[in-house]
Amino acid sequence: MGLYDRMNGVGAHEVIIETPQHDLTLAHLPLQDFINVLQAYKDRIIDLKQDKRFQYILIFKNHGQAAGASLDHSHSQLIALPIIPKRVSEEIRGANAYYLYRDRCIFCDILQQEKEAMVRILSENEDFIALCPYAARFPFETWILPKKHEVYFEDSSPNQLQSLANILKKILLALNQILNNPPYNFLIHPAPFYGKDVHYYHWHIEIIPKLTNVAGFEWGTGFYINPTPPEEACKFLQEAITL
Amino acid sequence: MGLYDRMNGVGAHEVIIETPQHDLTLAHLPLQDFINVLQAYKDRIIDLKQDKRFQYILIFKNHGQAAGASLDHSHSQLIALPIIPKRVSEEIRGANAYYLYRDRCIFCDILQQEKEAMVRILSENEDFIALCPYAARFPFETWILPKKHEVYFEDSSPNQLQSLANILKKILLALNQILNNPPYNFLIHPAPFYGKDVHYYHWHIEIIPKLTNVAGFEWGTGFYINPTPPEEACKFLQEAITL
Repeated sequence: MGLYDRMNGVGAHEVIIETPQHDLTLAHLPLQDFINVLQAYKDRIIDLKQDKRFQYILIFKNHGQAAGASLDHSHSQLIALPIIPKRVSEEIRGANAYYLYRDRCIFCDILQQEKEAMVRILSENEDFIALCPYAARFPFETWILPKKHEVYFEDSSPNQLQSLANILKKILLALNQILNNPPYNFLIHPAPFYGKDVHYYHWHIEIIPKLTNVAGFEWGTGFYINPTPPEEACKFLQEAITL
Repeated sequence: MGLYDRMNGVGAHEVIIETPQHDLTLAHLPLQDFINVLQAYKDRIIDLKQDKRFQYILIFKNHGQAAGASLDHSHSQLIALPIIPKRVSEEIRGANAYYLYRDRCIFCDILQQEKEAMVRILSENEDFIALCPYAARFPFETWILPKKHEVYFEDSSPNQLQSLANILKKILLALNQILNNPPYNFLIHPAPFYGKDVHYYHWHIEIIPKLTNVAGFEWGTGFYINPTPPEEACKFLQEAITL
């Protein structure tokens, strides 16, 4: 057995075409069309979860060339993986350590703490909160979390998908207005599948506008230099949200 | 005590100006000047290590705007940190696990295995090997490792610094020729300081040409999609090295 072991290369890669109109962006879709995109995410995850070889499904979107989009027509992507991704494992390990220590979900506690501080919350509706995270790695990084403790995105009800479309559209439009149609990535982090005891995990969306370059310091450390405090990013974005 | 604890913000940030000539790049410096740059890295690390508050010193270089360079004049940077960076911890944890399992340094074993495979080694001299790593995250990613097991860059002898300048210059010139002066980052990973038992760690340099964009999949997973196999990158670069 050599140093370099190979894993089974099974997986799935799907492209979700968000609109038939070539020049429309996701942020500008009519609400019902936006809901349909989220519904498509949900349907595809539920379908692919039946394949027991997959341990994780990541939904993500690259908007703009600097954010890695190689096609202009508005689309998002789904990748199903035979292993749990490194970054997801790290989040789960952290959430588990906190759960063992406090007997509570760390994401629920963050929501509680942010509601008390009220300096990083961007928007809130019946089901979701959008905020600039305390330890934001990037300028204008934004997270959207369900207010109720939920482990899987794909368990969202039709009402929840409508709330999510509402708040995500609002945030993308605000970023668009304040930062002049920036390149961005977003990704959905649900818990991994199948009998893994991950009830302490809380699914969420991370939105990363591509405004700075990741450079030698970041590659060498895994730490991020962010010149824009989340409280300031929050103030700017709120101006566009309340307009 | 809140969720968000702060660490002591002590640190150091220094800029190493590699040449007085504004239009010269590091790769094109005369060998002795290149050696002097490496000597400056070494001198500054040895000096800053006396400050017991620092646990790690990272030397890195950003070349070209897409790689994060905000200044044209050729320079590299040093950042001293009060904690061990995440990526360094991960490498140390991995090297330690391997050491406990095999009682050998994983980097030494990689060198041995690569010498047998002979499809990813770019260049070799008395003291160093340059190779495209087996699990390269990026196209044309290149590592330089001391052939003898060495824990700290800053322990390098004058002869070793000369060997290192030779091979690093060769690799930068080859990248420059094959990829037409690409933006790139490089970074030096030595072991952390002070009485930490890290004899199983093996310092090395990582060179990352900036040819692809890090996008949603990478941010969501911590995995990297690399369209160029290291064996192919190695073949291309070797053409430029042997010319």
